[in-house]
Amino acid sequence: MLPIRASVRQTPGYTPGEQPQTTDFIKLNTNENPYPPPASILAALEPELEKLRLYPDPVSRRLRQAAAETFGVQPEQILAGNGSDDILNIALRTFVDPGQTVGVLDLTYSLYQTLTAVHGAELEVIATNERFELSGPIISTAPLLFLASPNPPVGKHLNKDFLRATCARHPGIVLIDEAYIDFGDEDHWDLLAEFENAIISRTLSKSYSLAGMRVGFAIGAPALIREMDKVRDSYNLDRLAQALGTAALKARADFIPLWQKIRATRIRLSQGLTALGFEVLDSDSNFVLASPSWIPAPELYQKLKDRKILVRYFNHPRILNFVRITVGTDAEIDRLLAAVAELKG
Amino acid sequence: MLPIRASVRQTPGYTPGEQPQTTDFIKLNTNENPYPPPASILAALEPELEKLRLYPDPVSRRLRQAAAETFGVQPEQILAGNGSDDILNIALRTFVDPGQTVGVLDLTYSLYQTLTAVHGAELEVIATNERFELSGPIISTAPLLFLASPNPPVGKHLNKDFLRATCARHPGIVLIDEAYIDFGDEDHWDLLAEFENAIISRTLSKSYSLAGMRVGFAIGAPALIREMDKVRDSYNLDRLAQALGTAALKARADFIPLWQKIRATRIRLSQGLTALGFEVLDSDSNFVLASPSWIPAPELYQKLKDRKILVRYFNHPRILNFVRITVGTDAEIDRLLAAVAELKG
Repeated sequence: MLPIRASVRQTPGYTPGEQPQTTDFIKLNTNENPYPPPASILAALEPELEKLRLYPDPVSRRLRQAAAETFGVQPEQILAGNGSDDILNIALRTFVDPGQTVGVLDLTYSLYQTLTAVHGAELEVIATNERFELSGPIISTAPLLFLASPNPPVGKHLNKDFLRATCARHPGIVLIDEAYIDFGDEDHWDLLAEFENAIISRTLSKSYSLAGMRVGFAIGAPALIREMDKVRDSYNLDRLAQALGTAALKARADFIPLWQKIRATRIRLSQGLTALGFEVLDSDSNFVLASPSWIPAPELYQKLKDRKILVRYFNHPRILNFVRITVGTDAEIDRLLAAVAELKG
Repeated sequence: MLPIRASVRQTPGYTPGEQPQTTDFIKLNTNENPYPPPASILAALEPELEKLRLYPDPVSRRLRQAAAETFGVQPEQILAGNGSDDILNIALRTFVDPGQTVGVLDLTYSLYQTLTAVHGAELEVIATNERFELSGPIISTAPLLFLASPNPPVGKHLNKDFLRATCARHPGIVLIDEAYIDFGDEDHWDLLAEFENAIISRTLSKSYSLAGMRVGFAIGAPALIREMDKVRDSYNLDRLAQALGTAALKARADFIPLWQKIRATRIRLSQGLTALGFEVLDSDSNFVLASPSWIPAPELYQKLKDRKILVRYFNHPRILNFVRITVGTDAEIDRLLAAVAELKG
């Protein structure tokens, strides 16, 4: 009998969204940015290519410096992660002993649950209202709350007053996952300034068009970042990820028009789906959750897939008749809406 | 009082070897390959550059296929890691519950100890003889043994008969860390074939000149790899790391002359140091551990650093008067030997 931990044996593991290795799909299933990063950032690769044999900077100095300037904080407040998934995992292993609990909303990013299960910690599921929103400040003693704002799969910001009251009363860490923050109007820097138990996580995968490079950040009080840094793998970001991440942050001005474009397309997508008989939930992200009135959602998912359009279906009791659709380019959304209209007949 | 885990609060964290951000050092401190990878592998980056906005393949199919072909195993026997440090961490979190023990040799790669401490597991230190070698098969009930072969900081292979007997009797996992395997004459594929509790870890950081890209592997029985895969971050290798790792494995024939060259230089380095009054321990790796008879090792370390030559000094009771020196190019080793001769006067 080999020594597999019960916490590992008993979990099925995480199933990421489908990543087809062919390019013939319109890919609206994993919330990637439909626009590539500006070609100018590729120049950052050049000086690294002759140093591939050498270890990368173990503390990602330049990347963290660029992030500090972008976010208006100090480098000591920043931990660099191999994507924000790495940040979530590090937070869990820094703040939660196996057997303790982790608080997450019903519903949210499902990776929180998988990470918690693998770690051997218990999940505390925090009820939300019928719109999947916080119904008040969270009352919990969990050493860690994972709160995404905007919160998938709906994509709305959490109520700021409830979040503030949660930070104020919560005895543990409140990690606010801002993966989708650049597609909406709010942020949580005020909470970070106000509460020493608040940590913000960010990723360059969505708004900075770098899902392929795995760059994320935790931003918080230096005393927390220092502890998380002990849990971080010493060389968690390779040379090319550090270089491209730094260049992308410095090119922020070039990304802003893309975010505005995506927001405009989100409105078109929502209106188009509504006109086609969907209930579309309000979103501050680069995706919408929508429920068709005239076809079961799993069937819609499959029929779109047959037409080479990938959206996301979650087999979860609260959203059995919803699909989540990433905001693509206008042309992609036109193709999606045309395919849906054709299916509707 | 913020909820930092005791296991994290009480550990100082891992201190990687110095990685100067300037290029004016002769860098013989972290066992990088002194020769760059063949320029031909850079072509593998090209097709990825237009896909940076898209998530990488979550299961690193092509990379694992290339590794399977290189190692003569099946892809189901391979887990891809963000460097072999990621593999070590995954193994720990798959096979060891906090509170259980992890067996490591006295002495070995010090990261094993840090990972174990952060995880909240206990270290079982296994005594070695005066040459830092196994003195017999290991008798332990630890769910996981981390055994490097070749074993740093000396760099000798572990005795194969003792390793075989250890695998045969050990009730837990025996992870054989082969980071330096390509610089010696042995391997452990026979143990992998013979024992279902054996796992081999490999890295492209040393022999494949890709320390900057963080690519490593676990190779073992599919039943073990499947469980480790649940603990692995879903997107642990970015697009460019997967592409360069795959290309490097396919270019194996181009690396073999570099390994032979490094072995030849290792002999020159050992002979040169011996002639200069060092005790040099036998090595199967791309480094040697050596003790000067005429100067304290910390002083030698510092005086070499003042001359812009970086070697590694470990403040550990068993090797207080040793330095570890990476096998560089012939020119670098000439400079080192000249500097040492000058210091000796």
